[in-house]
Amino acid sequence: MGNTFGHLFRVTTFGESHGGGVGVIIDGCPPRLEITEAEIQYELDRRRPGQSKITTPRKEADTCEILSGVFEGKTLGTPIAILVRNKDTRPQDYDEMAQSYRPSHADATYDAKYGIRNWQGGGRSSARETIGRVAAGAIAKKILASFSGLEIVAYVKRIQDLEAVVNPDNVTLAQVESNIVRCPDAECAERMIERIEQIGRMGDSVGGVVECVARNVPKGLGSPVFDRVEADIAKGVMSLPATKGFEIGSGFAGTLLTGSEHNDEFYTDEQGEVRTATNRSGGVQGGISNGENIILRVAFKPTATIRKEQRTVNKEGEEMLLKGKGRHDPCVLPRAVPMVESMVALVLCDHLLRHQGQCKVL
Amino acid sequence: MGNTFGHLFRVTTFGESHGGGVGVIIDGCPPRLEITEAEIQYELDRRRPGQSKITTPRKEADTCEILSGVFEGKTLGTPIAILVRNKDTRPQDYDEMAQSYRPSHADATYDAKYGIRNWQGGGRSSARETIGRVAAGAIAKKILASFSGLEIVAYVKRIQDLEAVVNPDNVTLAQVESNIVRCPDAECAERMIERIEQIGRMGDSVGGVVECVARNVPKGLGSPVFDRVEADIAKGVMSLPATKGFEIGSGFAGTLLTGSEHNDEFYTDEQGEVRTATNRSGGVQGGISNGENIILRVAFKPTATIRKEQRTVNKEGEEMLLKGKGRHDPCVLPRAVPMVESMVALVLCDHLLRHQGQCKVL
Amino acid sequence: MGNTFGHLFRVTTFGESHGGGVGVIIDGCPPRLEITEAEIQYELDRRRPGQSKITTPRKEADTCEILSGVFEGKTLGTPIAILVRNKDTRPQDYDEMAQSYRPSHADATYDAKYGIRNWQGGGRSSARETIGRVAAGAIAKKILASFSGLEIVAYVKRIQDLEAVVNPDNVTLAQVESNIVRCPDAECAERMIERIEQIGRMGDSVGGVVECVARNVPKGLGSPVFDRVEADIAKGVMSLPATKGFEIGSGFAGTLLTGSEHNDEFYTDEQGEVRTATNRSGGVQGGISNGENIILRVAFKPTATIRKEQRTVNKEGEEMLLKGKGRHDPCVLPRAVPMVESMVALVLCDHLLRHQGQCKVL
Amino acid sequence: MGNTFGHLFRVTTFGESHGGGVGVIIDGCPPRLEITEAEIQYELDRRRPGQSKITTPRKEADTCEILSGVFEGKTLGTPIAILVRNKDTRPQDYDEMAQSYRPSHADATYDAKYGIRNWQGGGRSSARETIGRVAAGAIAKKILASFSGLEIVAYVKRIQDLEAVVNPDNVTLAQVESNIVRCPDAECAERMIERIEQIGRMGDSVGGVVECVARNVPKGLGSPVFDRVEADIAKGVMSLPATKGFEIGSGFAGTLLTGSEHNDEFYTDEQGEVRTATNRSGGVQGGISNGENIILRVAFKPTATIRKEQRTVNKEGEEMLLKGKGRHDPCVLPRAVPMVESMVALVLCDHLLRHQGQCKVL
Repeated sequence: MGNTFGHLFRVTTFGESHGGGVGVIIDGCPPRLEITEAEIQYELDRRRPGQSKITTPRKEADTCEILSGVFEGKTLGTPIAILVRNKDTRPQDYDEMAQSYRPSHADATYDAKYGIRNWQGGGRSSARETIGRVAAGAIAKKILASFSGLEIVAYVKRIQDLEAVVNPDNVTLAQVESNIVRCPDAECAERMIERIEQIGRMGDSVGGVVECVARNVPKGLGSPVFDRVEADIAKGVMSLPATKGFEIGSGFAGTLLTGSEHNDEFYTDEQGEVRTATNRSGGVQGGISNGENIILRVAFKPTATIRKEQRTVNKEGEEMLLKGKGRHDPCVLPRAVPMVESMVALVLCDHLLRHQGQCKVL
Repeated sequence: MGNTFGHLFRVTTFGESHGGGVGVIIDGCPPRLEITEAEIQYELDRRRPGQSKITTPRKEADTCEILSGVFEGKTLGTPIAILVRNKDTRPQDYDEMAQSYRPSHADATYDAKYGIRNWQGGGRSSARETIGRVAAGAIAKKILASFSGLEIVAYVKRIQDLEAVVNPDNVTLAQVESNIVRCPDAECAERMIERIEQIGRMGDSVGGVVECVARNVPKGLGSPVFDRVEADIAKGVMSLPATKGFEIGSGFAGTLLTGSEHNDEFYTDEQGEVRTATNRSGGVQGGISNGENIILRVAFKPTATIRKEQRTVNKEGEEMLLKGKGRHDPCVLPRAVPMVESMVALVLCDHLLRHQGQCKVL
Repeated sequence: MGNTFGHLFRVTTFGESHGGGVGVIIDGCPPRLEITEAEIQYELDRRRPGQSKITTPRKEADTCEILSGVFEGKTLGTPIAILVRNKDTRPQDYDEMAQSYRPSHADATYDAKYGIRNWQGGGRSSARETIGRVAAGAIAKKILASFSGLEIVAYVKRIQDLEAVVNPDNVTLAQVESNIVRCPDAECAERMIERIEQIGRMGDSVGGVVECVARNVPKGLGSPVFDRVEADIAKGVMSLPATKGFEIGSGFAGTLLTGSEHNDEFYTDEQGEVRTATNRSGGVQGGISNGENIILRVAFKPTATIRKEQRTVNKEGEEMLLKGKGRHDPCVLPRAVPMVESMVALVLCDHLLRHQGQCKVL
Repeated sequence: MGNTFGHLFRVTTFGESHGGGVGVIIDGCPPRLEITEAEIQYELDRRRPGQSKITTPRKEADTCEILSGVFEGKTLGTPIAILVRNKDTRPQDYDEMAQSYRPSHADATYDAKYGIRNWQGGGRSSARETIGRVAAGAIAKKILASFSGLEIVAYVKRIQDLEAVVNPDNVTLAQVESNIVRCPDAECAERMIERIEQIGRMGDSVGGVVECVARNVPKGLGSPVFDRVEADIAKGVMSLPATKGFEIGSGFAGTLLTGSEHNDEFYTDEQGEVRTATNRSGGVQGGISNGENIILRVAFKPTATIRKEQRTVNKEGEEMLLKGKGRHDPCVLPRAVPMVESMVALVLCDHLLRHQGQCKVL
């Protein structure tokens, strides 16, 4: 268990960072949706390491193959299996990986839980597992766009203390993709890149915040108790590696306001649609989408893999010093952008199908 | 769907704020656990409105009845159904509740989703729904305590900008319950109460942050992909009414550090146990509990129900002014403390059963 | 786990034969469906013991109360909780029930599984548990009827070797209800009643077969792999107490034919609809409904509770003789008729919602 | 949805008969189980078409590849993905397959449900989908054997009216595999083979019954309501292609007995274990395994694909004649034997993990 996400639109990922490959089965995709490997590959390339000087230098081709569920360019309504082969990588140094616990990695908890571990890499906790999520996210995004023109855009909002100014109501994918840090505030992006390079040169790493907006969301997605939209999005993004926090709408800052300052007053717009004058709710009220933009933020800790010397223990519990070799990824946030978009898309797509299933029958 | 939480320890709640009653079915509770209605009632009383001058003045007795699953004081391993009757309350004013949308409530989204609404109250979005969660949480806490002495303590960490100093490693339930705001920092608690009363008198409301710690957590709970401990806790607490944010361990503040500052170095303690010298991970690494204390925070927005005049629209979309009548609850946080504890307990209990089921077979 | 049935239309039952009560939560019922307690009560009365001279003489009022999810006669789209109180029955003889294992009851397996048992009755294996299923079935039937005029009729097809002649394509509820054995073949029904009374007087019991037909089934329900319509119906009816077999369409008899004898040839009817000339498939092909009538049969063993002396053991493993006291139910089949209808309705309703959710989105 | 089976031991299959490949993800396999591709391949070879003169002549190599979840010959506790490539088969004749509906196949229901269909083959309804199930079943069998020496043996019990005499309490895999029809009654097997060849030469096909026994089943698997062992097995086997009926223990024949004839009396064996003197219950009482052998039978209809001329319609609803070309599979039952074993194994393995998870915690 624990490798499936969603109820009507169900995504199951598989694969370790080392071994035959990684991938995903998407069960419940509506039939007759046009989809190509190229569309999926586009998102995988955004997620891929080695795409720029500020991400991990490992080059992974990550070429996807659709094994099932698509025929003559259209979905069949049956499970879509997507496979990305692992490269025949030389395992890293045995002593280091197999014997010692890298600080703030999952090595020790894996051993505690399973009593066995593929010491060649990060196993299922590796960012490589997210390939399956991003592939599924590409399909979910297309369903949402086809249904209501719904679009999801994420971007790097903050690196350490460098915070960008971005308007979530009109930021575009093109703006996000215009620089390697995926921050639509061009001036701030430059400073972010500089900071990442500087800290990376020191063998260290940085964290930050990814912000994400979903626009043209139909009213009525989500349900008022456990499966609230914000609860399911929280679970989705907090299941990404390296996440430490989540907020929607006003978030933690909203706790400083009074109720009269925080409440979103209603009005009727020119099309006769009930709208809110402000959007501190972040597009969700009582767990159900209200048609306003869904806006959320995710905190990513600094990458655990660094090249500085750290104290740790080995499997026998003996204390030792560990120093990462080779190059490392000083900042995961640019690659996390498509991951966050994907998890938000998976949640909204699942809720869309559930809403149609429950509420549109009679 | 959407009213069930958990996989092996499954909790399904039912009931609107108005109607016959609210309650819960707990499916998957291990057999032979000693449990009494009194233990459940204790937690329900902590959650109950009207328990002090700073919460909602509505008096609700909220007396629970165990309908099934317990025999001669012990669980049978079969579903435990718990019912709390609603009082035969006079519905509130028809015009106000049935016709207008209260700002930042779920009235409008309910109508958009279901096309029907029990206008007598908040329906399933009412805090009254959490009775079932807290009752289930009482049982989950007892299972966890019986299994490994695991204990969960939550408390009010911050009201607006008033932040308490609390040591999560040794804070006790008695300290939490020593004042009506459920903040173990006695000096700060006084200022919090004063603030809540002051703003409440103005017909307004406040928000803040609840912090929660789980101690004596066995290593190995959770799994490395979607069902990470922190992801499931995030979903659980973000499904509580009025929540806007979640963080674990270092949280959003952790994004300001570098990797070398943030990583938790390992050492071996006197019992030969692998431990971390710091706990920025918050007790979870790679989605799996590492035996350190699980520490998390939840942001609650200021209560939406206020007595100040607000602009809104009615069901016909006509703009109007709305002013809450009678008394209101200026601060939900003291009552949210047992809710947060319960959701954390539900998640850990489910993961404990799953871990025993998957990993302890061979 | 194990007390929930369905995915989008989810039914969770609770309650032992002794204790506060039994009931059900229905999660996922579409909103705005008109439903009354009287409609549910009608089906519960069909299921009720003591309704005629050939069923168990225990009189149970089984009055249902809707606790939530219905407002002003219409469903809200939220969980519908239904409660039926247990009567304050005097527990049966302690020595007999608590200490000995009744042959072909669940007493011994309960003790083996849970290590604890409510010795006052059959616990969750009691036919009393099916109250929740039948209540949920009443709602499922109404949804199906509202959606496509779908109707489900079950009846007693066979008692021991007494087999009725019934045309499933036009049998009516009125015909089924026209006699106490619920067999629409009036002549055969008389012989069945005679047989049941004769064997019942001897302190013994009989079994037989219930047949069930669903008419006006929309094409396209079900899916081609695990969640085939016939697989889900098989699970549903085989989860009823005392069932030993299931077949659909040609069933076991179909294994005697050749492929050319068994295949259902296609033709186009006057409305231009693709139909099958025969219906050995029983309304399902490749796991998906084809619009023909779904026809199935369920084998019920003779009731385990008899008044004849039997050998058994007590909890200490000591061999002993056991003889049921008081009156007993010589034949469960008339009461099983609404149970079978309900399980078929739950399956079809769940598949209807899932089909609308997955296939009607784009 | 509908492509996943199980709760703690979860199996998700993918793949059409045509396209990149078919396979399975097994989520929840306990860690540290020794497993090799050869063990899985052995079961796949039993399922493979073309293995003897009486099955389908299509030669499929069906070589499996473990993509993840196994490291150095042991399971990791993470998802095990297994892939079997499809051969680059020339699609069959377009006119026949794409335009006409083969009688008693899923062509028409697919079109009704999805509005699209891979006309090159049977899609997900193809027996080829069962490759994933059999691969997963190989692993489930190994877990069960490791846990309690549990063994599952299935065999052909009947072809049309030719019924074998087999003792389920001691039949062995070697006896089953000793002839091509997989019937351990050697004399009857010869007559079965003769019958299959004779009817096959006429372009027609036959059906029959597969019987399956599970021995050394621990007491306590299953639960008393929806997830009864027999209900879950019924669902599992009735989700196999071409199944029309299921029975456990005394089955349909048991309906002819009286309660006093049918009840299984208890006694205490020499080891002090509570046993039943007879086993009409088929190893399950109240939905829970009682430690006796689980014995069940599955009815398979004659294969739908024949070489005789049949009436049907095309997609436009025009009536036409259809005659299968090439060779066909006159009898699916020998290949169905490992399929039935696999589904029984999946159910028991899931219940084992759930039982350990729920009942062995306190």
